[in-house]
Amino acid sequence: MEIDYTKIKVIGFDADDTLWVNETYFREAEEEAGRLLSLYETPNKIDQELFRMEIKNLPTYGYGVKGFILSMIELALELSNGSVTNDVIAQMLNIGKDMLNKPIELLDGVEEVLKELSKDYRLIVATKGDLLDQERKLEKSGLLKYFHHIEVLSEKEEANYSKLLKHLDIEPEAFLMVGNSLKSDILPLVKIGAQAIHVPFHTTWQHETVTKKEANGSHYKTVKSLTEITDLIS
Amino acid sequence: MEIDYTKIKVIGFDADDTLWVNETYFREAEEEAGRLLSLYETPNKIDQELFRMEIKNLPTYGYGVKGFILSMIELALELSNGSVTNDVIAQMLNIGKDMLNKPIELLDGVEEVLKELSKDYRLIVATKGDLLDQERKLEKSGLLKYFHHIEVLSEKEEANYSKLLKHLDIEPEAFLMVGNSLKSDILPLVKIGAQAIHVPFHTTWQHETVTKKEANGSHYKTVKSLTEITDLIS
Repeated sequence: MEIDYTKIKVIGFDADDTLWVNETYFREAEEEAGRLLSLYETPNKIDQELFRMEIKNLPTYGYGVKGFILSMIELALELSNGSVTNDVIAQMLNIGKDMLNKPIELLDGVEEVLKELSKDYRLIVATKGDLLDQERKLEKSGLLKYFHHIEVLSEKEEANYSKLLKHLDIEPEAFLMVGNSLKSDILPLVKIGAQAIHVPFHTTWQHETVTKKEANGSHYKTVKSLTEITDLIS
Repeated sequence: MEIDYTKIKVIGFDADDTLWVNETYFREAEEEAGRLLSLYETPNKIDQELFRMEIKNLPTYGYGVKGFILSMIELALELSNGSVTNDVIAQMLNIGKDMLNKPIELLDGVEEVLKELSKDYRLIVATKGDLLDQERKLEKSGLLKYFHHIEVLSEKEEANYSKLLKHLDIEPEAFLMVGNSLKSDILPLVKIGAQAIHVPFHTTWQHETVTKKEANGSHYKTVKSLTEITDLIS
């Protein structure tokens, strides 16, 4: 089934790893945690345990840097059997603050694509994570002027998108979502009858990966770079 | 100047300490921090220092429980000169999780007032804080059915409210805001030409207090309980 781009009126963009670099910073922070806790475990094991801790705490903390750091501290106490130094905890707090204050590094061609598409479509951002952090990143990105609406969601599941489309008063087939996560940006949209274009980022958080089976039979397009979208649609 | 309630079409409610108890839990957590750090300072000094740390970190962490706990841990490292035990840090993490998982305790008459007002007005929630935490509290409160729209703001200043009213497509004079914080729920609204009713809660976070001078000359009404609003408007 070919995607019918002629019906599209509104295009939604994911933010982290679609408009700008994000996951890379989490990877760096995970590596840093591996170094800080290397007295107690191998880097590989620390990585696995940090992921387990994040998933355990996700219902309580949600997505974002603050919950990530709280999980990292909890893991430090646990892996060290209560013997980790205050200095390590202090370094973890600093990792979090550094992440929250990082400058924005736009991905290739983002500004040109948004500028071009904003002539013919209403553009919105649909991102999940921490409200303040996401608003701050958008502000710093200089991209706010291209968007009619910013929606920060606590989850990106079918129900969240249906509610968003209702709120924006658009039919699913008139909505195209663009993002790097099959799980969060593509499959839920395809399921509610909207359209989706997948732009993979070179690294994906384990929690966001889907099996071939889960994606099987879903109709969406994959492109290598955001810059391909302009040609595809027009 | 009397408030003209006849023009009102939309009523916005603050959530924490307006619909349900919140600040009380922060006070309890602060007392608990005082006990946990009593080796290093007096309770009074710990309280002051925790407030200082929260305000210092507010631009980075924003409002909400997760930032509060990260600040509490940072203070523990600082006040103890790097000698606080892992056990104290673990207890601080638990204070945060307990706060995030607290049941909702509605304030007196809230449900009746919302039920009554929702017959004649569009009701919305305008709250600040952590997105996931606020959504979860609304869900748990059982009050979602009375609201047309939920807005979680990263700040509650004039510009945030102006944007919200524009988004909701209503004139300032048709909007009435109800809340417990003069600084966040009342004065910014009065300044943009909307209406406001102040319902004080018995305890107010230091950061939310305003001087008599700041509030001087602002036209808003103060009531003792949310239940007075129904009579006032109708």
